[in-house]
Amino acid sequence: MRVFNSFNPPARLLLGPGPSGVAPSVLRAMSQPLVGHLDPAFVQIMEETKVMLRQVFMTKNEMTFPVSGTGSAGMEFCLANLIEPGDEVVVGMNGVFGSRLKDVAERCGARVVAVEAPWGRIIEADQIAKALRGRRAKLVAVVHAETSTGVLTPVDEISRLAHENGALFVLDAVTSLGGCPVKVDEWEVDAVYSGTQKCLNCPPGLAPVSLSPRALEAAGKRKTKVQSWYLDVNLLASYWGQERVYHHTAPITMNYALHEGLRLILEEGLEVRWRRHEQNHLALKAGLAELGLEITSQAGHQLWPLNAVGVPDSVDEAFVRKRLLRDFGMEIGAGLGPLKGKIWRIGLMGENCTEENVDAILKGLKLAIKNGH
Amino acid sequence: MRVFNSFNPPARLLLGPGPSGVAPSVLRAMSQPLVGHLDPAFVQIMEETKVMLRQVFMTKNEMTFPVSGTGSAGMEFCLANLIEPGDEVVVGMNGVFGSRLKDVAERCGARVVAVEAPWGRIIEADQIAKALRGRRAKLVAVVHAETSTGVLTPVDEISRLAHENGALFVLDAVTSLGGCPVKVDEWEVDAVYSGTQKCLNCPPGLAPVSLSPRALEAAGKRKTKVQSWYLDVNLLASYWGQERVYHHTAPITMNYALHEGLRLILEEGLEVRWRRHEQNHLALKAGLAELGLEITSQAGHQLWPLNAVGVPDSVDEAFVRKRLLRDFGMEIGAGLGPLKGKIWRIGLMGENCTEENVDAILKGLKLAIKNGH
Repeated sequence: MRVFNSFNPPARLLLGPGPSGVAPSVLRAMSQPLVGHLDPAFVQIMEETKVMLRQVFMTKNEMTFPVSGTGSAGMEFCLANLIEPGDEVVVGMNGVFGSRLKDVAERCGARVVAVEAPWGRIIEADQIAKALRGRRAKLVAVVHAETSTGVLTPVDEISRLAHENGALFVLDAVTSLGGCPVKVDEWEVDAVYSGTQKCLNCPPGLAPVSLSPRALEAAGKRKTKVQSWYLDVNLLASYWGQERVYHHTAPITMNYALHEGLRLILEEGLEVRWRRHEQNHLALKAGLAELGLEITSQAGHQLWPLNAVGVPDSVDEAFVRKRLLRDFGMEIGAGLGPLKGKIWRIGLMGENCTEENVDAILKGLKLAIKNGH
Repeated sequence: MRVFNSFNPPARLLLGPGPSGVAPSVLRAMSQPLVGHLDPAFVQIMEETKVMLRQVFMTKNEMTFPVSGTGSAGMEFCLANLIEPGDEVVVGMNGVFGSRLKDVAERCGARVVAVEAPWGRIIEADQIAKALRGRRAKLVAVVHAETSTGVLTPVDEISRLAHENGALFVLDAVTSLGGCPVKVDEWEVDAVYSGTQKCLNCPPGLAPVSLSPRALEAAGKRKTKVQSWYLDVNLLASYWGQERVYHHTAPITMNYALHEGLRLILEEGLEVRWRRHEQNHLALKAGLAELGLEITSQAGHQLWPLNAVGVPDSVDEAFVRKRLLRDFGMEIGAGLGPLKGKIWRIGLMGENCTEENVDAILKGLKLAIKNGH
């Protein structure tokens, strides 16, 4: 038998693309003893969580709850429930998560019409309009906040176009929810998913989702069974709804965490929270400029919670990240795909989005770059 | 805005079908701050977790790791990776989880040959032999420990039959792993899944799995893509293997929990742990007999971690459970499907499998039944 020691995590300041830092009261919530997944006390926090999630998503959608997996399971939940084999779907692709949407949709049997934009730029409504022309698309899916590039695509016009053409509108709000406005009802989003480890103050492990009555109707009218039993909304509705029919065993502790994380968001207030994310983004941007660094995503559409910072030609990208982690315990993210080696990704999310952390990462970067030339 | 109070769970003694009680050191592990999912420190506990999981599964399988979902996601992982549309698969059905295997396999496009036994009885090897005759089945899947009935099906002969007929052997070890022998290599199991919330001392949220080289080869030789992106072993192998390619963001805190939970198991020792589960099962059985109650699952094949107890005709099944929960904070499970109202399910799993808890539930049952007549 080979037994290891208990794990004692090193102190880290998580300023990458997520997971982000977790609020102390969320950590405490997770150390509480378990109750059963059908216990009246657990049913109560399920109900409270749904009420709070609706407020954070700004929706009245009854079907608003956390899927028992990470953000990518939320993506798969939305697509697997809405797509039937042969359906045509329009997918915006301007980064890693747009590409993932395409891959997942194809695995659900969709014929994907890809609408591409260069990494770092938004998907333009005009592009979606063009893609929809002459098609009977089942849905349009775009990424709100592209975590791989730091760009925020405006989606109200895209949503309008989708509905005008009889399609559902699906939104990836993994990195935007809780860090900038996500207005599900106002924007008429039919299916939206997020993750707990970005701006919601929690560890990764749950994927909050919300489906409009229109999306639920589409899922209910399917001719084929949803290919995933685990993610079938028709089954999950019986557990998260009033019947409480056993489906799978909900991750109790992660639900404790989400309940507390949502509480903190609503106590702060959504508007105040968005403002905090905006201000710290702007402070970071100003500080970066003083170091001769700039944010590379499209001007006017730069994400607050996640900043893509261009790496100067003379600097060793990976050395700087390693130095930050080893010497200062600060984590920032690397670029992915075509942006590998070209950007750093600095997250200012939820609990970790503070003035102090902006100062800390600017100081850290300055020192690390000096040695990384 | 409607904000709720922080949740303070009531004290519960969890003696149902799971979740079971969580060890104090696991609760403490979950309250530790997060590190990144590609942090060298997290990579270290991923490696240690794989080494420890292999010992608990009694296997040398390289591809042994926790899927980021609950036990049912582990089931879907095994079937979705191995089944291609049109494949014929043989499924043992003698309870809720056998039925679930059939449902999931069908959603993967399988033509299912169901091998049925009455709820509470085992699947006989002869039945499997008969089902395999004259077929080219892709795999045979059975539930080791049927949590819905408390029966343990012996599987070494079934595995031999599967291989003799060129099929893979898939095993549900959700309730058996850590509570009674699960010998993956000795029994030549090709794909096995479990859950963290039964005999592994952890909350629900991860599904430990293990695939044999033969199963991995089958997954690698597929003509079609795995229908689930989230559960595609070909993608997961790059994250949990040496390359550390980003796939999804692993649930950091749940992995802290599993690491500590596995440590506790190996510190105790597998044999000692199995003995503890056997002895407490026998003590419960003897105590039940004194109350005029008996375990209803097939004699000679009764599960240690989960006991199906027959409800006397004169007793109100639901009243007794409610009384136990309300007055003594003890949770036991109800019967499902055809056993609804006919059995109680008493779990003695992992941390909660103790002599004291056997005494406690016997006393509680005695009092509650007195009032439930």
